[in-house]
Amino acid sequence: MPEPVVRNRHGVPVYQFIALSGTGKTTFLEKLVAELKDRGLHVGVYKHDGHDFEIDRPGKDSWRMTQAGADVTLLSSASKAVIMENRPVPPEELADRTDNVDILLVEGYKAGPWRKIAMRREASGKDWAVPPEECLAVITDGPSPDGVPRFGFSDIAAVADFLQADMNGH
Amino acid sequence: MPEPVVRNRHGVPVYQFIALSGTGKTTFLEKLVAELKDRGLHVGVYKHDGHDFEIDRPGKDSWRMTQAGADVTLLSSASKAVIMENRPVPPEELADRTDNVDILLVEGYKAGPWRKIAMRREASGKDWAVPPEECLAVITDGPSPDGVPRFGFSDIAAVADFLQADMNGH
Repeated sequence: MPEPVVRNRHGVPVYQFIALSGTGKTTFLEKLVAELKDRGLHVGVYKHDGHDFEIDRPGKDSWRMTQAGADVTLLSSASKAVIMENRPVPPEELADRTDNVDILLVEGYKAGPWRKIAMRREASGKDWAVPPEECLAVITDGPSPDGVPRFGFSDIAAVADFLQADMNGH
Repeated sequence: MPEPVVRNRHGVPVYQFIALSGTGKTTFLEKLVAELKDRGLHVGVYKHDGHDFEIDRPGKDSWRMTQAGADVTLLSSASKAVIMENRPVPPEELADRTDNVDILLVEGYKAGPWRKIAMRREASGKDWAVPPEECLAVITDGPSPDGVPRFGFSDIAAVADFLQADMNGH
């Protein structure tokens, strides 16, 4: 197994959360993002979706430009900005373009090269989505391998502590 | 007047189309994008909106991450990718981040530093949105200043020719 990637091209530490669907990954990350924000960190979240998604809305000017063939459609207002790349973008490239955040949390990209935090619910009756012993940490309400830091699904502050200590090299 | 900016940080030529609302800027750009694509160019379009917009949808995972406080929310699928910056991003910064296109067309940012193409409908009874004599070209069905290249609203191919010649330094 190659060494996992720790930081992106801009030095932003990247952690990917891996679980089967139904594990509660999004709910957990929602709380973790809020916790990290409360601690003053700038947080990026990257959701890779095996399925397609439609973010733009038919009839909007930006949608019309994309339909006309624009390769990149940009939008901005006084409060936010959106970059739409209307082509397949390798996840590593997308993560590497992320700057101006202190931490990047990746959700749903099992094949990603970054360090992994595996999540598993005992009640699912299913195995881990990735081998837990290859992970930086695990979040579970069931058994986990010795030697791998282990957290419960409600241990939001403890996971934030763990990530901050890791980011800071402790 | 400072010299207008010709290319972004990545060397992509930038042209901004300036008109009062109701001039048909979006319809014109829609056709121009399709024409440039037909010629094999990779095209970026940037719409700056004085008003706010909502691109994400309540309840979606990405929306939940943004609501939780994510500063950057990334999404990707096998066919496209979206970068949402949940903060005010200076338009120049956004344009400067655009790479992998041959041309960037900006719509609706009168204060932008790039070279301008002004559009005006005679029937509007209103003046130009920017002084036409300061523009690289104008698109109008009414009078225009001598010495400034002038096109009609249906001259899509001619405008594409003009832009391509300009991009290539002719």
